[in-house]
Amino acid sequence: MSYEPTPEDRFSFGLWTVGWLGRDPFGEATRAPLDPVEAVHRLAGLGAWGITFHDDDLIPHGTAQAGREAHVKRFRQALEATGMTVPMATTNLFSHPVFKDGAFTANDRDVRRYALRKTMRNIDLAAELGARTYVAWGGREGAESGAAKDVRAALDRMKEAFDLLAEYVTEQGYDLRFAIEPKPNEPRGDILLPTVGHALAFITRLERPELFGVNPEVGHEQMAGLNYPHGIAQAMWAGKLIHLDLNGQSGIKYDQDLRFGAGDLRAAFWTVDLLESGGYEGPRHFDFKPPRTEDYDGVWASAAGCMRNYLILRERAAAFRADPAVREALRGSRLDQLALPTLAPGETPAQLLADPSAFEDFDADAAAGRGMAFEQLDQLAMDHLLRA
Amino acid sequence: MSYEPTPEDRFSFGLWTVGWLGRDPFGEATRAPLDPVEAVHRLAGLGAWGITFHDDDLIPHGTAQAGREAHVKRFRQALEATGMTVPMATTNLFSHPVFKDGAFTANDRDVRRYALRKTMRNIDLAAELGARTYVAWGGREGAESGAAKDVRAALDRMKEAFDLLAEYVTEQGYDLRFAIEPKPNEPRGDILLPTVGHALAFITRLERPELFGVNPEVGHEQMAGLNYPHGIAQAMWAGKLIHLDLNGQSGIKYDQDLRFGAGDLRAAFWTVDLLESGGYEGPRHFDFKPPRTEDYDGVWASAAGCMRNYLILRERAAAFRADPAVREALRGSRLDQLALPTLAPGETPAQLLADPSAFEDFDADAAAGRGMAFEQLDQLAMDHLLRA
Amino acid sequence: MSYEPTPEDRFSFGLWTVGWLGRDPFGEATRAPLDPVEAVHRLAGLGAWGITFHDDDLIPHGTAQAGREAHVKRFRQALEATGMTVPMATTNLFSHPVFKDGAFTANDRDVRRYALRKTMRNIDLAAELGARTYVAWGGREGAESGAAKDVRAALDRMKEAFDLLAEYVTEQGYDLRFAIEPKPNEPRGDILLPTVGHALAFITRLERPELFGVNPEVGHEQMAGLNYPHGIAQAMWAGKLIHLDLNGQSGIKYDQDLRFGAGDLRAAFWTVDLLESGGYEGPRHFDFKPPRTEDYDGVWASAAGCMRNYLILRERAAAFRADPAVREALRGSRLDQLALPTLAPGETPAQLLADPSAFEDFDADAAAGRGMAFEQLDQLAMDHLLRA
Amino acid sequence: MSYEPTPEDRFSFGLWTVGWLGRDPFGEATRAPLDPVEAVHRLAGLGAWGITFHDDDLIPHGTAQAGREAHVKRFRQALEATGMTVPMATTNLFSHPVFKDGAFTANDRDVRRYALRKTMRNIDLAAELGARTYVAWGGREGAESGAAKDVRAALDRMKEAFDLLAEYVTEQGYDLRFAIEPKPNEPRGDILLPTVGHALAFITRLERPELFGVNPEVGHEQMAGLNYPHGIAQAMWAGKLIHLDLNGQSGIKYDQDLRFGAGDLRAAFWTVDLLESGGYEGPRHFDFKPPRTEDYDGVWASAAGCMRNYLILRERAAAFRADPAVREALRGSRLDQLALPTLAPGETPAQLLADPSAFEDFDADAAAGRGMAFEQLDQLAMDHLLRA
Repeated sequence: MSYEPTPEDRFSFGLWTVGWLGRDPFGEATRAPLDPVEAVHRLAGLGAWGITFHDDDLIPHGTAQAGREAHVKRFRQALEATGMTVPMATTNLFSHPVFKDGAFTANDRDVRRYALRKTMRNIDLAAELGARTYVAWGGREGAESGAAKDVRAALDRMKEAFDLLAEYVTEQGYDLRFAIEPKPNEPRGDILLPTVGHALAFITRLERPELFGVNPEVGHEQMAGLNYPHGIAQAMWAGKLIHLDLNGQSGIKYDQDLRFGAGDLRAAFWTVDLLESGGYEGPRHFDFKPPRTEDYDGVWASAAGCMRNYLILRERAAAFRADPAVREALRGSRLDQLALPTLAPGETPAQLLADPSAFEDFDADAAAGRGMAFEQLDQLAMDHLLRA
Repeated sequence: MSYEPTPEDRFSFGLWTVGWLGRDPFGEATRAPLDPVEAVHRLAGLGAWGITFHDDDLIPHGTAQAGREAHVKRFRQALEATGMTVPMATTNLFSHPVFKDGAFTANDRDVRRYALRKTMRNIDLAAELGARTYVAWGGREGAESGAAKDVRAALDRMKEAFDLLAEYVTEQGYDLRFAIEPKPNEPRGDILLPTVGHALAFITRLERPELFGVNPEVGHEQMAGLNYPHGIAQAMWAGKLIHLDLNGQSGIKYDQDLRFGAGDLRAAFWTVDLLESGGYEGPRHFDFKPPRTEDYDGVWASAAGCMRNYLILRERAAAFRADPAVREALRGSRLDQLALPTLAPGETPAQLLADPSAFEDFDADAAAGRGMAFEQLDQLAMDHLLRA
Repeated sequence: MSYEPTPEDRFSFGLWTVGWLGRDPFGEATRAPLDPVEAVHRLAGLGAWGITFHDDDLIPHGTAQAGREAHVKRFRQALEATGMTVPMATTNLFSHPVFKDGAFTANDRDVRRYALRKTMRNIDLAAELGARTYVAWGGREGAESGAAKDVRAALDRMKEAFDLLAEYVTEQGYDLRFAIEPKPNEPRGDILLPTVGHALAFITRLERPELFGVNPEVGHEQMAGLNYPHGIAQAMWAGKLIHLDLNGQSGIKYDQDLRFGAGDLRAAFWTVDLLESGGYEGPRHFDFKPPRTEDYDGVWASAAGCMRNYLILRERAAAFRADPAVREALRGSRLDQLALPTLAPGETPAQLLADPSAFEDFDADAAAGRGMAFEQLDQLAMDHLLRA
Repeated sequence: MSYEPTPEDRFSFGLWTVGWLGRDPFGEATRAPLDPVEAVHRLAGLGAWGITFHDDDLIPHGTAQAGREAHVKRFRQALEATGMTVPMATTNLFSHPVFKDGAFTANDRDVRRYALRKTMRNIDLAAELGARTYVAWGGREGAESGAAKDVRAALDRMKEAFDLLAEYVTEQGYDLRFAIEPKPNEPRGDILLPTVGHALAFITRLERPELFGVNPEVGHEQMAGLNYPHGIAQAMWAGKLIHLDLNGQSGIKYDQDLRFGAGDLRAAFWTVDLLESGGYEGPRHFDFKPPRTEDYDGVWASAAGCMRNYLILRERAAAFRADPAVREALRGSRLDQLALPTLAPGETPAQLLADPSAFEDFDADAAAGRGMAFEQLDQLAMDHLLRA
């Protein structure tokens, strides 16, 4: 089978991914800057479908209006030349020192207002370029010490910001939804909305919750030791998985942003299985950092590897789901029963109480003796994953 | 200052805490069973106000009806003799082997029905004993392998269960709310609703969300590396902090259930500060396990230590908030500005866009130069915590 | 290719693995006890080569001498009937409450002496049954609080114990080496000798270091977030990898003891690669726990899965190492240069200082531009692992 | 009591600590560069005793010889003017892109040779300035993927490097020992010698082990979830704690480098207790990063806080050890028995076997009933820590 990506696979990459220069907390850049135009062409050549950006990736911070237009024009020409799309854009609210204490929840009110304006400006560009999703990662919204942030006040400010932005998008008639991206820590000691769950809960308290969803990143959830497929499953269950960031992470440590497939391979397998079988219709977006050991050959190998690994895992997941032995094993593990309601149609509490088979006559010890056969099922998954 | 607890402090303990026999994954019980009646008397003697229980703590699983009534009668007499209250109760849906794959989300439908009945039965007792909160910890709702649980189907089953229970409580006219207790893992590889955020998000999708809140446990959030005070702050922000489990945990590892104050002492300080200054009105409930190295003298010392440490921290937090130097430092860190809305009253997106001070005239570099003075503020907190 | 194990593969299992009844911190046993004789026969039937045991696995604690002999006799007969070997044995110094504060480092001196005697007794049996390795896991040697254990005194006691045991083995003429098994925590809050490194360092301070090595367990190192293949590589480098415990773990959390191949699959791949290509000659010993969701069909499926996964990974690692493209990629990443000494033969500091090519004429910026090509190499590994 | 530091307290700071500009993986510098001369004066003014440096902290990489001498001269004048000492120096083998794959274990041999020369050059300066300790943190010695580094070959190269450096120091007659600093990860996915244990074990295999010790950093061990006081206790037990890095860390996550006392306060207390009562004679060296939210007022407040917190904890630890109730509690927990040898003087295995009180007559169940009284002891520690 071929694992060559095509635009139909809807693979997208952030400009900041292949464009990461390799500067880390302990070292200088190891690669020369990459022209966004070249990024578009190279990624298109590898089979990608879309490109995404922070405002400052495309237009360096502080660029005057004329320069800004020139940057956008060149980028748009590259998109047209290659057929690449811009499915998503986002704001850089973390690199400039002014955001050192946050953006929408900075203690300084003028910083918060500036952050909103910076975001609105890039929303205009995102809409202009056809993006349908606007990601919001509040990487600086947090604290290192206990009194530095009144979390409830900060959540009030966060809500205020998102309500304003939703109002703006609505007024402008933009066909754009916001995807909030959670992360537990780094670069702040603790970040607000640290997991998919916290972001989903937050959204329900906004004025226009229908305009919001989440953008879960593999590594971010895994930095909290959480099961990524479980997290996106809850987001899907809530109708809120509108975008996602695929990458790799090796456990609870600093944010690694490995290429997709590296790190926890089994979680990657179950992620692809869920996306492909679960009705997810958004882009397959890679948010990774080619290790700073690599030159640009390594960068492009790494980007290609993200897509290749997705396609391999898609093939394996499809084979797993199609295998009659797997279907039998799923029944053996009573997944069919999990799909059935616990209650009979319309069953009331009183009716449940009146059913002796549910309690009085239920032989818990006998029921406990039934094996779940999960090990046989999981070994089948392993065999399919490894094509053994 | 005295650190002697009184009933006004509203300290409560689970029967299973002082009653834990010390059996762990690698070792046998190190203590003889504790009569619940003795637990009530001893805790009352130490200054506690309330006692909580799982059904099976009070009435061993499988007890016949007559025995059941005798257990309840003795317990009630102890409550009356001591003035102890029962602010909360909960169901054991994890010890019996029948729950090995879960209770409300077990793949086996009959197990799910049995779990509901077991819960309803204990809800009756909880209401009878005057509990106002019914905690639901779904410790077995989860999986160790990827295909073993369809998370979305499981969340459907979880919702079905809670909707049914809420209907039951409503029909019965019980003055009882449910508090869902999250945990990321242990005893399952991954547990559903792993954090406060996931539980808050789940609740919003129930039929009677007003009957639900969360019961965050210090150690459970810390097992995911999350900031506990941040978590309960978000729950308070959502109006959903109706109960909580105080204990100690030393970082990301197995569930330790240390006495309150042990483990992360600074998180304990900020927790007490938030509860005391943030309007939390529920019980101060301890859910800890006296280490199995201890005999019963150690058990009672440990229980007393939970309360003592809370009172010490309460004193220190109050002094911190009352100190004029702290108030000045909070202003120096612009916490007063965080409390102000970012937008002017009624300010629209258009008005924000028209304010040049927010963007065009904003000097980001100059603003970036303002120090946040968080280190001075945090050192003041340290000084108050340590009374230095 | 067939993945059927044979005795030549030298797979061994602990009696306590397939014999684990499923009792965990929150739940009762889910399986009935397994007769050690049946375990021997079943494992032999699956293709295993060896069986290992704690004293109490084979002979329940407190058994009188006559019963003891009967247990040993039946076990020996099973070994003879099946051809199974006993490559390793170990002592249970953690289940009985007397060890609640440790064994060799218990604060109570009489407990320490008892622990030594219990160990010596089982060493005799181990030698009698032909074991060549005696594992020592000090699961209870540790503490939950800071003053409870004087670590330096405890290490003195630990050294004293191992020196005595080594003297005993030497005097008895047993052909037996000790393998110390590290673990960071659980069941104690912190365990002494928490990682492979700590154990290796400890061994060098013993009186007969030549009789000691380490027994690293996959999950134990991963519970500290450490790279297991790196850990065993350092043990091999020190000539001290004499035994190991293969299983699976999903990150930093409670000790999961998943079947080998579950959990971190890539680490499992590199582990097998290292064992097979690195000259490890000990048993491939599985120390896992079949999940308590499983009945005995699941138990045997899980045991079979351990071996099958090892064989699959062995095949893939061999193919990886044999692939000419991989060899080329390894050169591209300059692994050949890493194998070369940094200094010329006999080169002195003065000679190095006199070599201008090493510093004065070295163009660091130019050298920094060389890509390491690790991503291409790692993708080749992924392709071989997945047979893509 | 005063918590004002004096030179007698032997507090030292790295130039790179107060000099950290606040550049992190997601953001630009928030502070202007700090002149090393000013750092010396300011730290001296705060009561510090020593200053330490990487070569590149003092002399920017690439400085010509004349500039180099000017930098050193100004620095030396500042030392003389203030009386500050240079107890330790170290090499920056991680910032320049040439070290992206390591220094002593880089796959590229010429990089390894360059790293040695860069180190030797700074050793000369360290000796000239009177340093007695030379720290070696191999932050780039590691890998992100499995085949990229042959760990055993890399350890050969590491040994070769340290043997050469030890030879050099010996030949030159420098009174200088090396302190190896472990870290589990960041900036590499996995770093070689990840913990104190691994470093201690490595040292025993060097040609001149007597010239080597370890430099454990609080946060580095805690990034692996390890107990820092336990780690340094094992280093002291091995006679190898020759230097250390004090700072703060909030659990398993990115390297935070908080000021000492922040993060895990109880671990800080036990650390100070051990250093002060355990005979550690080296500097109290702070290796922290003032958060990037801070301006230089915050930087100096943070540096002062490190020392203040140490002095507060020293006072509390001394009071704890001096308290008769604590001494009684330590006996109650049988710490006195832990200090006694397990064996009688000269006791042989045969004699132990012949002692029926050790086994045949030992009543394990009765012994198990003795409580360890650790909770009472730990609450006393808490009371002293909090001065309650």
